[in-house]
Parts: sequence; structure tokens; C-alpha cells
Amino acid sequence: MTDPIFEEIALIGIGLIGASIALRARRDGLANRITISTRRQETLDRAEELGLGDRYTVDAADAVKDADCVILCVPVGAMGVVAEQIGPHLKAGAIVTDVGSVKRSVIDQVAPHMSDDVHFIPGHPVAGTEHSGPDAGFATLFDERWHILTPLEGANPVAVEKLETFWKQLGSFVEIMDAAHHDRVLAVTSHIPHLIAYNIVGTADDMEEITKREVIKFSASGFRDFTRIAASDPVMWRDVFLHNKDAVLEVLGRFSEDLAALQRAVRWGDGELLEKQFTRTREIRRGIIEAGQETAAPNFGRYKTDPD
Amino acid sequence: MTDPIFEEIALIGIGLIGASIALRARRDGLANRITISTRRQETLDRAEELGLGDRYTVDAADAVKDADCVILCVPVGAMGVVAEQIGPHLKAGAIVTDVGSVKRSVIDQVAPHMSDDVHFIPGHPVAGTEHSGPDAGFATLFDERWHILTPLEGANPVAVEKLETFWKQLGSFVEIMDAAHHDRVLAVTSHIPHLIAYNIVGTADDMEEITKREVIKFSASGFRDFTRIAASDPVMWRDVFLHNKDAVLEVLGRFSEDLAALQRAVRWGDGELLEKQFTRTREIRRGIIEAGQETAAPNFGRYKTDPD
Repeated sequence: MTDPIFEEIALIGIGLIGASIALRARRDGLANRITISTRRQETLDRAEELGLGDRYTVDAADAVKDADCVILCVPVGAMGVVAEQIGPHLKAGAIVTDVGSVKRSVIDQVAPHMSDDVHFIPGHPVAGTEHSGPDAGFATLFDERWHILTPLEGANPVAVEKLETFWKQLGSFVEIMDAAHHDRVLAVTSHIPHLIAYNIVGTADDMEEITKREVIKFSASGFRDFTRIAASDPVMWRDVFLHNKDAVLEVLGRFSEDLAALQRAVRWGDGELLEKQFTRTREIRRGIIEAGQETAAPNFGRYKTDPD
Repeated sequence: MTDPIFEEIALIGIGLIGASIALRARRDGLANRITISTRRQETLDRAEELGLGDRYTVDAADAVKDADCVILCVPVGAMGVVAEQIGPHLKAGAIVTDVGSVKRSVIDQVAPHMSDDVHFIPGHPVAGTEHSGPDAGFATLFDERWHILTPLEGANPVAVEKLETFWKQLGSFVEIMDAAHHDRVLAVTSHIPHLIAYNIVGTADDMEEITKREVIKFSASGFRDFTRIAASDPVMWRDVFLHNKDAVLEVLGRFSEDLAALQRAVRWGDGELLEKQFTRTREIRRGIIEAGQETAAPNFGRYKTDPD
């Protein structure tokens, strides 16, 4: 237990990320009070059943009125609407942040509704699972994962530091960068991988001569790895692509060019090129494992019978 | 311990798959004698240090002379050369099989070197990890994974059944299909996923404005999932693509068409199409989990701190 960092935090949206923040904040006493707000009464009731907060309301404006930290945990496409609702009701001096996977668009949507006496500091926890909803949350989700903050020019350094401390207490490492760079980096490390995964699962599903049963049976040969991120929340990901269009299209263009080169090598039997491309990729995985962002166990350590 | 199925098996090639066969066969007494042969003395010495077999030789022809089951565990591109070496030295009545990821090409390469008094029955264990070499083997690799046999027309049913029993004792389920269908199914479930994974890891590595350090740090947002299969053996995979060209190019054409449709939806802001595509993919993952081919734990159960 550390001293509480905030007197009251308000979570607007209570899916995987919101619920995980709530559970960790409660576990470690990072706030004296947690208010939870979400649009659907059913989800709110579930959050209450799970004991995620101290106060529950469907009214976002009501939820934020006493909060000294407000965290927007809704899909990227809903940020503007929520910001408009809460803007006039924020407490003077409050920190407002978010957990959206795209930063430039969130800034464009949220900033216009923030008055000068609150601190809007956009953020993105680079953590998650393929599960969604309040039941998917767990207190250790952010442990040793990176949290990216993209403060606007002239952001109050004391407020930024306070938010940084909060995320470190949630378990994260914190990195500061500008929003445009964030959006390009995440297009590479997250958005395009998701699009590719969704796409290949769709392609397999559409093969007329191969049954779904066969795809399932023989999925351990590679395919099943893609189905994990392709099982992620469809609405959240729809919004990511709609709101990070430029970076996504740019990286996708490069991906398709590179794939065309591999396709050509397959067609013309260029084994040298294939082997060269397939060799360079091992190094990156080694780097990820060494950085503590991945397990070294074969097959992600899926099975109890596998070696460590 | 069951009764041995074979008096002597010979493993030609001793990487992940060969070593796993050896370990399981020894553990459960599936053969009275295991002979191991591989081209490189260094690998053979390592196999001996690991105690994988009873007899070791770099001479494949010598290795097979007393074996009643010969299993070719070399990359697909090396099958023809090995078949030519061992062909004249096989024992009458011996079963010859392989573990190659492509079947039509292996048949074309191997069958011409098999005399009428041996039983050549091609096979493919749909199991593996991203690790390679004899040290990567483990006795439970095949447990509850599928083994596909693609017997030629007129194959001896007694020999097929014996080989089927052997693979079941190794832990597998066994499925019989024709080679051409195998090659198309595996193009979808295995070959294209590997090509895509190798490709995206290469694309990320080539982004000028994004450092490798950033790709590594923020990989937990999706990218790292792809690096696992992109860390697979480059020579083995080079050969798969060179030897399953037609099916790979066909599925890749479909994949690229589908991706172009998603790309267009991103460009024109067609959220409805994106959400629809992203929703249908969850069902396949559920099917894979229900079929016992995947863990239901979030994030593949990577972390001890994650929920089950």
C-alpha cells in the first residue's frame, strides 16, 4: 500500500482496460474513491457486481464532478461525445486522460471540450488481451507493459508527473512521445498486425473447398496464432482504423509491397531471397524476449506438457 | 509401455520433429532400436549427447539397412536426395514415411526411388514450435495434435494401419487425405500464416523513422504474436514455399484481394464493413479452443500473473 495518488478517480467506460485500472487501483489503494460510469445499465450493473468501484452512474457528467483524475476508457470513436458531456462538469485542476489506441484523433476530439483549468494529458497503455468487457479485467494487466503519454505542448509538468506516477503504480513503464509519432509506431506494432490477423482469418473462412472443420483441426500449424488478436473487440478495432487512417494506409502500403516481393520470389523459385528474409526475423523476436515483453517458452508456453 | 510397434526405426534428420519422435518412442518403448542419421557430424554428436538413439551414423544408406520403419525428417527440398541415397539399401517390407509440410512434392521426389517391396506412406505431423534442432525436441510434442497421412493409390492397408498406430502411440490423432488436398489445406492453415508473419516482421524492421527499439518495446500490442512463427527454421520454410508454389500463390491471391477490400474500407471510412469483418472471426477461435487445439487463457496464458 502506498499513499493514494488521487482522492477520487472517475472511469468513463468499464471494459478490459477500465476494469483492470479499477482492480489495481483498489488493490494498491491508489485512490480513495473510484467512480464508474458507462452508458449501458447492464454493463454498469456488472461492474457493481464485480465490486470494481465505490459509486456507479450512467451519467458521465455526474461521474466526473468530484474527480481529480478522469480516465476515458471508451472506444476511440466515442471520445468526442464523452468529452462534450463531461467538459462543463469537470472539477478545476482535474487531470483528464484516456486509454485510446490512437492519439491524434483523440486530441482533436477531446481538446476542444477541455477548459483551461483542467489538465488534458492523452495516454495509451500498450497492454491488453483478446477478451473484452468488465469481466476480462485483472489487476496485473499493466505489469511491465509500456504506457505512452502524449502531452500537448505547454502541458503542466506537475500534472504530467502525477499521471506518470499513477501509471507506474499500476505496474507500467512510462514513455513520453508526440501524438503523431505514437500513431505511426502503433500502426506498425499493433494496428496493421490486427488488420492482417482479421484478414487472414476471414480469407480462411471463405475457402470453398476447405471446410471450417479442417481449418480448426489443423490450426496448430500456424493459423491459430492469428486467431487470438482476431478475437479482439470489433468495435474498438473498427474505431482504431477509422481514426488512424493515414498511418495505417502508409504501413499497409509497405506491407503489401513487401508481400508482393515475397510472392514473386515464390513464383520464380528464388530460394535465396526467401531464406534471407526468413532469417532476419529471428533477431527481432530475441529482442522482444530480452526486453521482457514476451515469453521465451516454445509455443508461448501454451501447454503444461511443453518444455520451459 | 506398450509392445514395440517396430523392431527398429531409422530417423533421417534429427531436428525438432525427429528428436521429438525419438524421445517419445524411447519413453514408451515403441521400437526396440532407434538409429539416427544426419548429414552434419556436429548435429549427430549432439543427438548422441542427448541420448536420442541407439546407433548414430552420417551415412543414411547404412542407417536404413535393418530398419522396418524409416522416417525422413529433413527439409522438403532434401527429400529427393535422401530417397536416392537410401532407396537401394532399404529392407524388404520396410515402411518409409516422412514428416514434410508439403506432400505432392515429397511424393514426386521420393516415390521414384522406392522399390516395389517397400511401403512408402507420406505423412505430416501438424505440430511444432518455433524452435529447431535436436535440443528443441520433447516427448509430448504430438499429444492431441493431428497427423495427416497421404497414402498413394494402392497402398498396403496393413502397412498404413501400422503407421497409423505408431503415430497414435506418439500422441497424435490421425487423418487420411489425398496429397493435393493436404497441400491446399496446409497452405491456408500454415504456409500463408508463416509467409504473412515473416513479411510483417520484415516490414516493421524496415521502417526508417521507427527504431527497432520502439518496435520491441511496444510489441505487446499485437506484433509479438507474429514474431513467434517468424522465428521458425528459415531453411525448412524456404523449402515449403518452393515446393507448394501453386497452392501458396492461390491462397495468397485471395488474401491480397481480401486485404485490398479492407484497405479500401479504411480509406473510405466504411466502419460497417470493418465491424462486420472483425466480428465473424471470433467464432473460428472459439472453434479452435473447443477442438482442444488452443488454450482459452488470455494472451495464450503467457504470464503466470494472468487469469486462467
